[in-house]
Order: sequence, then structure tokens, then C-alpha cells
Amino acid sequence: VKIAETIAAKRDGQELTTAQISDWICGLKDNSWADYQSAALLMAITLRGMNARETADLTRAMADSGERLRWDGGNLQIVDKHSTGGVGDKVSLILAPLVASCGPKVPMISGRGLGHTGGTLDKLESIPEFRTDLSVAQFQAQVVREGLAIIGQTRSLAPADRRLYALRDVTATVESIPLICASILSKKLAAGLGALVMDVKCGSGAFMKDLPSARALAQALADTGKVLGLPVRAILSAMDEPLGETVGNAPEVVEAIQTLQGEGPPDMLEVAYALGVEMLLAAGQTKSPAEARLSLERALHTGAAFESFGRMLHAQGGDEQVLKNPAKLLNAPHTREVRVPPEASGYVTAVDALEVGRAACLLGAGRQRAEDAVDSAAGLSRLVKRGTHVTAGQLLAVLHTSKAATLDSAEKLLRAAIRIAPEPPNPAPLILDSY
Amino acid sequence: VKIAETIAAKRDGQELTTAQISDWICGLKDNSWADYQSAALLMAITLRGMNARETADLTRAMADSGERLRWDGGNLQIVDKHSTGGVGDKVSLILAPLVASCGPKVPMISGRGLGHTGGTLDKLESIPEFRTDLSVAQFQAQVVREGLAIIGQTRSLAPADRRLYALRDVTATVESIPLICASILSKKLAAGLGALVMDVKCGSGAFMKDLPSARALAQALADTGKVLGLPVRAILSAMDEPLGETVGNAPEVVEAIQTLQGEGPPDMLEVAYALGVEMLLAAGQTKSPAEARLSLERALHTGAAFESFGRMLHAQGGDEQVLKNPAKLLNAPHTREVRVPPEASGYVTAVDALEVGRAACLLGAGRQRAEDAVDSAAGLSRLVKRGTHVTAGQLLAVLHTSKAATLDSAEKLLRAAIRIAPEPPNPAPLILDSY
Repeated sequence: VKIAETIAAKRDGQELTTAQISDWICGLKDNSWADYQSAALLMAITLRGMNARETADLTRAMADSGERLRWDGGNLQIVDKHSTGGVGDKVSLILAPLVASCGPKVPMISGRGLGHTGGTLDKLESIPEFRTDLSVAQFQAQVVREGLAIIGQTRSLAPADRRLYALRDVTATVESIPLICASILSKKLAAGLGALVMDVKCGSGAFMKDLPSARALAQALADTGKVLGLPVRAILSAMDEPLGETVGNAPEVVEAIQTLQGEGPPDMLEVAYALGVEMLLAAGQTKSPAEARLSLERALHTGAAFESFGRMLHAQGGDEQVLKNPAKLLNAPHTREVRVPPEASGYVTAVDALEVGRAACLLGAGRQRAEDAVDSAAGLSRLVKRGTHVTAGQLLAVLHTSKAATLDSAEKLLRAAIRIAPEPPNPAPLILDSY
Repeated sequence: VKIAETIAAKRDGQELTTAQISDWICGLKDNSWADYQSAALLMAITLRGMNARETADLTRAMADSGERLRWDGGNLQIVDKHSTGGVGDKVSLILAPLVASCGPKVPMISGRGLGHTGGTLDKLESIPEFRTDLSVAQFQAQVVREGLAIIGQTRSLAPADRRLYALRDVTATVESIPLICASILSKKLAAGLGALVMDVKCGSGAFMKDLPSARALAQALADTGKVLGLPVRAILSAMDEPLGETVGNAPEVVEAIQTLQGEGPPDMLEVAYALGVEMLLAAGQTKSPAEARLSLERALHTGAAFESFGRMLHAQGGDEQVLKNPAKLLNAPHTREVRVPPEASGYVTAVDALEVGRAACLLGAGRQRAEDAVDSAAGLSRLVKRGTHVTAGQLLAVLHTSKAATLDSAEKLLRAAIRIAPEPPNPAPLILDSY
């Protein structure tokens, strides 16, 4: 396999062979491919695309670049959910215990937040002592024993993905559907899943801003999964306003725990149930969507899901006081209540996810660069929801931060995010499609 | 200027700003741009293109990466010719003295051959003791004193071009018209030319195989020159059969000297005159094409051009015996006469330049990689021309080599290159267009 011929083939819009793709990914490791050659190929792929067979070959080669997990008794009951990221998206924290308490096992490998989108790992780490850096063996043992675990990316699974992602990040080649597909699916393939459910978010607060590109990603994930023999169901969900009433790390953990205790906001529950239904069906746990939904509701209302969360918290060393009194995590030194101005009243017609995400980021909840630290307690709580009727003086949100100087700018961003009009907005569906 | 934004802009098909282009080229030098970032941008340019303004900005930034020559009294009479490369293309060796003996000064900076195409430097170096590695100061002084000099690329002129070319060579980004334009023109701009005449070759033996891509390159060169304020005239010439009757380094020098002595093959003279006319007009030396043509013919027939060649040879240290007895350069230990087979006779309807170039390469005249050495005496002489009527036993060419083992394969390639048919071929124009 000649490197320049591989690059030239993709440059000219041709299909790469399995051998060419595997030579590339092996070449990342043995340095027979220089980074500038990978960068040229990444740009050619970004502009020319790859079909499902090429994407599957790339995914497989990346999964084979490291350890691949095996599960005793097969992987039929091993399911995971992955989201393309949004604002206020604490669904994983609720969904993993919800599904695990129904039978399937959920080995979740999550990421950190970047920019205005949060990351599940950062959220969990706002719980004192919670460990997300388990070894692969500890991770597997916990999943088998407790039914679930949520950890960070490990160096041993799909290391080629780390290499490629670092290169894509600095060469403007992140925005490529086949590369996004291969990056997500390679880690899931290496984790030995039996099935994957994807939450492809679409809207101002999501990576995919418009419906056509979100649809294209969802379709590519499903198509690639089919070639790989890894069942992938993709749900397309709206991300025009934040999910739930909190944004930020500790604020979202508090809301997730309250949800597991039976007091969750309807939009978040709707997304969690929609994804949970797909996971139970994919695991063969239930036969119909209705039956799956019933199992999930039961798991929530009996407290089984909350218990499952507690077992994970215990196993991963987190402070169990948080289960009894989650609100104590909201300990930011500065808070500000933002209220409807005196002259205004009407219906909230929009709560722009991107602007709210930026406000949370400004307060300290997000990071601009991968190496930045986050402020656990920073963010927003009691955020008003689209469709609510409000009058002068009513609460729009509470801001939390340890940097008082950011409050004014964050309030400005929040106010710009919220639109109030005399007429109620048309209802907007949350689940847009499924693949 | 943010690097990722520059790459993303071109990825998305946008026009790069002057500041973005200059940041990139400066970044090559100070390493603020990593090679993988340049490679990604090169691929984006290859697939998305650049307009004349961007190409001119890139050319200028590359020229500014090193020394820029100034000529006392202005550059009006400083002209050069550059060819995109072909098989048997020894035109520079004839054209430089031809034009210089008419008045303008010709500072030629030439390249080496690669693959099946020859390079002027390799040809000149088949003359014992001929030096092509003059310093820039020596080069300029010789041009002023003798009217011409032909040297190799120097490190001090347009060093960014060397960096970029090395990167393009290993990232499948050589085939990009704006990048080719900028590479050629940056060196010419740095040499302080008053005008440039381009010979854009088109056909099997050329870099541009088809007319549309050759036209696009010629047009881009002319357009970019206009934005730069550097007059560029481009001639489109056919490269389906080799120019003249020789291919290889010493064989071509011998033919060039014989041409300057009044015994040149008509196709080579036609191309030399066409280019020479444009050079004299560009230098303001003559007012009309007819007058220019007359001056060139006179320079050839009076021996003025031959004398000019002799002055260059003397100034650059070459063995002057070569002027008296050029054929002594044809000293390869093994030769083979290839003749028309017994059963065949008719008209030569094709002499494929690419195949003949490959035969010469096999005999030792070319290099596969930039670091390979060439065999000066290797190549072909007395090559039959398209349109010739031949009968059994008549000479098709003489092969020259120091590796006897290559003769059989080279003969096979040569025979495959030559087609003989009962009917004479239609006349094929040599000069296809001008820009």
C-alpha cells in the first residue's frame, strides 16, 4: 500500500479499500504515516466523504488499535447510549440507572465538556470523591456486579481515536460525518457492546445545527452499525432549549438525582424514556415499546433506578450524603436571581440553548480548551421553560458562580436567550425522528 | 489570525484573506504552523481551489520568504521562459542564447528531471565541468555581463516554495493549479523578472495530459501574473511526441548545440521561435511578432546565438571542446540501433512521448526519486519523427546506455511507443494556443 496513492484516491473522490484504511490506522501507530499525511487524508475525507463500508472499515481498524472487551456469556444484554452533546443534557445520569435497573448492563464511557456543551464526566466529578478513572478490569467487574458504570475514556480502548481526534481538532477536520461516526463507534465497538442507542441532538445548542446534517449523521451511524454487525438505533432530538431546568455540573447532578427521586422535568423524562425504550428493545429485554416504557416508569416510581444510581455512586467512591441531600452540592459563593423585568409579561417563546450554554460557561461551568478546569458548582438552576406564562418579577433562573464579576455578563446572555411574547408558542416536538 | 479558522475557511470553499495567506507562509518559517496544518490546508486548496487574487497573494508571500533580486536600471529587459516539462524538451538550451543575443537578459533558474521528464540542469551537467551552482551574486553578475546564465534553484530565493513542495510531494497535493502557479511564479518574482513566458505542455509526455487542464493552468498563470504586475504570456504546446530527435541529457545537449550551429529539427525550432517571439515582445525589444521572428532567425543564422551559448559555457566553466565536437558527449559504452521490422512499412503515425520518456529513464537518463543520480550519456538519438515514411530495416532510434541489461526492455518500450500505419497521419499543430 503506497501512502500517496491512498491520499490521492480519496482526493479524487474514490472509495478507499479495506487494506488502504487499515494501512493508515496501523501507520498512525508505527509512524509509517507522518501526521501531515494523515492530515491531508483527513481533509480529503472531510471534503469527499466515505461510504458506509469505508466508515465501517475505519471504525473496525480504530477499534482494533487497542484492547477489545469481551463479556462472559456474550454481549446481548450489554447496551449503551451516546449523545452528540447539548446544553443541560444530564440524560445519561438518569438513563444508565434506569435501564440497568430493568436488567441490561450499561458500560458507559463518557467524555468531558467543551465550549458550551457539558460532559457527563465533569458532572459526575462534582460529587465529592467520585472516581471516573477506573481501570478497564475494574470497570468491567463493576458493570457485571452492579449493572452499570460510568468512566472516562481509557488509553487502552481505541487509542487510534485519540491520535486522530487530536489531529482533527487542529486541522479543521472535526466536522466530517464519517469521521464523527468512526470516532464514536470505534470506542463502542472496542467496549464490546451488543447494541448502541444514539441521541443525535439538533438545534442551536447542538453540534449539528440543522436538521439535514443531523439526519445525515443519524443515518450514517445506523448504516455503519449495520455493516459492522453492531445494531445502532439513532433518535433525533431537539436541542433548541436546554433540557430540564439546570445547566452546569453540580446543578445538573442535583436535578438528575431529584429526577430519580420522582421529581423530574417532563422534557428530560421524555428524552430519557425514548432512549430507554430503544435500549430495552435492543437488549431483547422487552418485546414492545409499550412494555419497555412501562418497565422504565416502574423502575423510576419504585425507586429501583435511584437504588441503581446509589450502587454506582457507592462502587465508584462518591460521597453518599449527596443521595440524601443533593442540594448541598449547590454551594457556589455567589448567586443571583434573574427575574422578569417590571414592564414585561407574556409567554416564554424561546430559551436559546446556545446562549444559555454560553452563560453557564462564563459563570465557570464550561471550558474553552481541553486542559482548562471547570467550576463544579457554577451554572444555572430553576431555568424557566419555553411555553411558560410569566409576569413581572417572576423568576427566570438562578445564576451560580464563584466569580462574582461574571454575573452581569451572564445575566445579559441569559436575558438575550429568553424571548417573551404575548401569544403562546406553537408546541415544538422534542423527539424529531428515529433511525 | 487563527490557524484553524484559515483551514476551515478554505475547507468551506471561502476566499482566504491576504493576512491569512501571509500568516500561513510566515508560519512555515517560524513553525507557528505545524506541517500537519499546512498539509490539511494544501488538500483543502487542492479540492476547493483559489482565485487569482489568492494565488497572487500566495505567490507574493512565497517570494517574500527569501531574497528578492533587484536589477540596476530596472527589470524591463529581464525576461525568462519556464516550461512545465516534457520529453526531449531542450528548448531552454537554445532559447536562452537566442534571446540573449537579441538584447534582453535571460536569468534562467532551472530544475532537475523527475520521472519521464528531463530537467535543464541535468542536461547542462552532462557537459564536463559545467557549474550550475553559482551564488546569487555570481549569477546576477554573469547575466549582466554575458546576457544569460542558467543555474539551479538556490536556497535564498523563495525558500517557502521548497518547504511547501516537499510537503506537497508526500501528501498528494502536487496536482493543484493555484499551487503549481504559485510555485512557479514565486521563484520568478523573487528573481526580479520584467516578464515571463510560459511553455505549458499538453499531452502524454506532459504533466498536463489533457487540453482543459493545460488551458486552466495557462489561464491561471496569466491571470495571476496580471494581479502581481508581472506580465506572463503562456504558450500551449503539444507534448504527444518528444521534441526533436533526442531524449536524454548528453544526447539533448548535442542536439541543442547542433541546432545553434544551424542544424536543428523543425519542431524544436518552431517551439523555440514561438517562445522567443513572446520574450522579445515582452522585453519591448521588437514591436511586432514578424520583426521578433526575423531577429531570432538572424541571431541563429549569423551564429550570434551560438556565440552567446559559448560565452555562457565559458563563464560557467564548461569544457569548451564540446562546442567543437559535441558528439563526443555521446560516449555511452552500449548502444543499440532499433530498426523497422522486416514485415513492416508505412507512415509513423505516433511516437508516444510518455513511452519514449520511460525508455530513456530505463536506460539511465531519468531518476525515479529526487535523490537518484542520472547517467549523462544515456538516452535516445536519431529518433524517428511522426509523419515519416519508413520501410523495413530503416532506423527508428539509437539507444545509449551504460547498463546493457536495460537495452531489451527499453527497445520494447520504444517499439510500443511507435505506431506505423499505411496512411500518413493528419498534421498535428505544435502550438495549440496562447494566453
